Amino acid sequence: MEKSTPSEKSTNLIADWQTLQRIFIRPENDATQATLLKYMDQILFGLQDFLKKHVGITEEISLKELSDNYKETRISKNPEKKLADVITDLIKNIAPNAVNVASPYFIGHMTSAIPFFMVHLKTIVAALNQNVVKLETSKVVSIIEKQVLAKVHRLIYRESDQFYDTHVQSTNTTLGAFVEGGTAANLTALWVARNSALSPRNHFSGVEKEGLPAAYAEYGINNCVILVSRRGHYSLRKAGGLLGIGNQNILPINVDENQRIDITSLQQTIREIKKKGSIKILAIIGIAGATETGSIDPLRTLGEICRENNIHYHVDAAWGGPVLMSDKYRHYLDGIELADSVTIDGHKQFYMPMGCGMVYFKNPKKMDAIAYHANYVNRPGSVDLGIKSLSGSREATSLILDSALKIMGTNGYALLLEHGVETAKAFADEIQRRENFELVTRPTLNILTYRICPAGMQKALATGDANQKKIINKKLNAINRTVQRIQREAGLSFVSRTTLYLNNTPDEEVVVLRCAIMNPMTDMKILNNILDEQEEIYRSRFTPEL
Amino acid sequence: MEKSTPSEKSTNLIADWQTLQRIFIRPENDATQATLLKYMDQILFGLQDFLKKHVGITEEISLKELSDNYKETRISKNPEKKLADVITDLIKNIAPNAVNVASPYFIGHMTSAIPFFMVHLKTIVAALNQNVVKLETSKVVSIIEKQVLAKVHRLIYRESDQFYDTHVQSTNTTLGAFVEGGTAANLTALWVARNSALSPRNHFSGVEKEGLPAAYAEYGINNCVILVSRRGHYSLRKAGGLLGIGNQNILPINVDENQRIDITSLQQTIREIKKKGSIKILAIIGIAGATETGSIDPLRTLGEICRENNIHYHVDAAWGGPVLMSDKYRHYLDGIELADSVTIDGHKQFYMPMGCGMVYFKNPKKMDAIAYHANYVNRPGSVDLGIKSLSGSREATSLILDSALKIMGTNGYALLLEHGVETAKAFADEIQRRENFELVTRPTLNILTYRICPAGMQKALATGDANQKKIINKKLNAINRTVQRIQREAGLSFVSRTTLYLNNTPDEEVVVLRCAIMNPMTDMKILNNILDEQEEIYRSRFTPEL
Repeated sequence: MEKSTPSEKSTNLIADWQTLQRIFIRPENDATQATLLKYMDQILFGLQDFLKKHVGITEEISLKELSDNYKETRISKNPEKKLADVITDLIKNIAPNAVNVASPYFIGHMTSAIPFFMVHLKTIVAALNQNVVKLETSKVVSIIEKQVLAKVHRLIYRESDQFYDTHVQSTNTTLGAFVEGGTAANLTALWVARNSALSPRNHFSGVEKEGLPAAYAEYGINNCVILVSRRGHYSLRKAGGLLGIGNQNILPINVDENQRIDITSLQQTIREIKKKGSIKILAIIGIAGATETGSIDPLRTLGEICRENNIHYHVDAAWGGPVLMSDKYRHYLDGIELADSVTIDGHKQFYMPMGCGMVYFKNPKKMDAIAYHANYVNRPGSVDLGIKSLSGSREATSLILDSALKIMGTNGYALLLEHGVETAKAFADEIQRRENFELVTRPTLNILTYRICPAGMQKALATGDANQKKIINKKLNAINRTVQRIQREAGLSFVSRTTLYLNNTPDEEVVVLRCAIMNPMTDMKILNNILDEQEEIYRSRFTPEL
Repeated sequence: MEKSTPSEKSTNLIADWQTLQRIFIRPENDATQATLLKYMDQILFGLQDFLKKHVGITEEISLKELSDNYKETRISKNPEKKLADVITDLIKNIAPNAVNVASPYFIGHMTSAIPFFMVHLKTIVAALNQNVVKLETSKVVSIIEKQVLAKVHRLIYRESDQFYDTHVQSTNTTLGAFVEGGTAANLTALWVARNSALSPRNHFSGVEKEGLPAAYAEYGINNCVILVSRRGHYSLRKAGGLLGIGNQNILPINVDENQRIDITSLQQTIREIKKKGSIKILAIIGIAGATETGSIDPLRTLGEICRENNIHYHVDAAWGGPVLMSDKYRHYLDGIELADSVTIDGHKQFYMPMGCGMVYFKNPKKMDAIAYHANYVNRPGSVDLGIKSLSGSREATSLILDSALKIMGTNGYALLLEHGVETAKAFADEIQRRENFELVTRPTLNILTYRICPAGMQKALATGDANQKKIINKKLNAINRTVQRIQREAGLSFVSRTTLYLNNTPDEEVVVLRCAIMNPMTDMKILNNILDEQEEIYRSRFTPEL
């Protein structure tokens, strides 16, 4: 809706048919092309300042001030702004108040810098605007998606050439699916597990058709449960709620001192459930890279337990999956190939832009349990990827992953992942060296937790009784909450915080600082700065105790 | 992973740390910036040819040939290609085999051309890479999202200034949510409806926590159902399956001759269910723009019925919602403001790129029924949008809608929507004028269905008995299937097909051709060409019957 005079007030803009048509045709004339390209220039490089300096999670008060600027709730009838002004506004006013997740000082969440070519790839996906759930709106892109799925499936399961030759482009089988994120991936896996466990038989048409209460009646059970360690992601509870199982039936199993599922507790729980006779275990979940601690469950042992007990085995490798590309650390995920289903996120350690989850199935017929058809698309036997998919419209993020794998190679990804793992280990060592800090969970991958805990308090914790420990932890929790908040509000760096129950008991509830090291620009110099800042905040705010 | 010699074979590329770091830093030197911009130039304008000429849903045989090129399932260890080559490959080899949904001859699905500025906006979203489920990875973007939600909520519900002032930036209430698409939006709405109907009471902690069988026991029911007309989107069945209700319990209600829900049948069904006493109606769904026919249910009447019976009222306006921006046609959706929840898709008639669904709730506390918290994010009382959301990571598509509303104004959108409605009406008239065609469903909005049905056969259908009609329809179905396929394979234009039961009976199963007119470049000249081509195919393939 551009008009010619740059000085006119935006309120003078009007919508007219000619302008509208014009914005739907990619322009042929050089001047307009140059203008559109100039906007891209602004987008690519105008954000430089933001991406270089700023971290910017602001203090609460300014959050309130900020939100006061966004209270108008009427959509203007006439165009308010020209594209150029919208872009300028995004760059000058919005971006500086967004969070620079690309900063090497931003180590608090699983969102980080992405290679700049990802932005180009996302732009192509937007320009093509394919809807990959139906072949009629995607064609070759559906085919490429099937290929990428096979590539990552092979990374996980390492089946034979013949297996992949059969399934890579088969329209009757499915090796996995692209979804919005890890939550949708976990949901899809458990949806398949539920439907497989409560499948059609005799006169019963299956849980998907008849519903959960009818299925319980048919199978003579009064409850279904899913077992996962206390470190399980909250999306698993959400899936339990959504699927009608009830989120209290996602049973948390205790963890060992390395934050991995405690196998003895798990076996005990399985025995107790079996004794009751009226409860079905729909799935056991292994974690490959816990959200809070990065820990990896003993995947092979879990797989063997599932096989013995004939239980669906799901591995949530949303975070850790890409480690399979590193020859050096691949063994961390040993046994993942036993999983019936696996979750991996593209927007985490495949370094893709937001919005790419994936779920994989060992058995290429497994996803039949959630097939849906419609008359106007997804007819039986078609290549339409939407037949076995949560969503009914979906962008072609598979094109981005396909391209990225070609540009990076597994070796490129391996370098990134190994940098993360090794930097996290060095960071852990540094934390242990400093007397005011306590390393709470040692990194297996590139996530670790620690807390401010001065030497004196560490000693007191080691020698005190349960009650004294509780009091000290409470003090430490307050200290760590405050330090994390002040550091975040200062806006120079960002470390997140979470709460862990040590030794599986709420009695030892500790607030910890949490880091995920995935930005290749994050090095020990930066990490030392972050620790220094935390120590300074601590010293300036709290009288050293004990 | 670029190397300097352009002639070297891609297999010679290697991944090294310096190159890797380089791709994470937006370059400061002019030459590299120019190169990156040149790629954008290629992406924006290299696709011109594809977007101008090609429609391209190819014949089955070439689909098989095509898939033979995408059977390699090993990820290369070393980089296979440089970014420049990947982009060239996408433009020269992939795009021509994708589907040009932007063609004005592509009128078969709800995917169409988008204004070119949408590509710029999507690029900004990718470059910022915010994760809007947590404030710590999005800040102002979460705030803008709340504002956009309020703007569209206001478009639907037209509540008071005071209402919006209270809720637009409130951290305790939620006017709606951005999700991946219409399926996730419908799922979210029905998830909320299920949890509200089977909420905690006495010692029962609610269906979300305890599961569906426990909820049925507590509420003394043996089944839950959801009522929607036969034109309901298949995502509703999917939601029924996922939520544990069972997809057979999404009960299809007959439609009237305008493909709108038949109120008498609905009332009858409600009475029968109530008589049984042991069945709960979780929701009644009104459709505003049916996927197959574009028809709009009598939304006000449905709202009144729901209110009388105290049933959750959901309106699936995935397609039709944006019509609210047209003063001329807004009355089509009269009564939508009675809905407890409303689905609208951004990637449909807001002309946004793939992957934007939305769900709105009349009551800003309604989404509390699906709230989830975690220790590391989404803590109670925070601004984190992920607390009440299906997904755990999500890109900032709200920024795109916000910008688009500013660039277009409601008037701009209204022009596009009105063009679609009026062109569809003119198209319907033309179909009726032609003796070889029969208009099957008249467009209310911009979707219509018709079929090839020569005058002689029309007469025979009008006078024949049930059995004769069945035979003729079977012949016509074969004709229409063939013509649609041949036209699609010819690749000049694309009309989709679906199957409708006329008069609500499988005895009158007819295959119809289906068009959705939303591309502003689609005019009567193009539509006449499409009809001409269909007549030609018909004449060349079939001996005129009767």
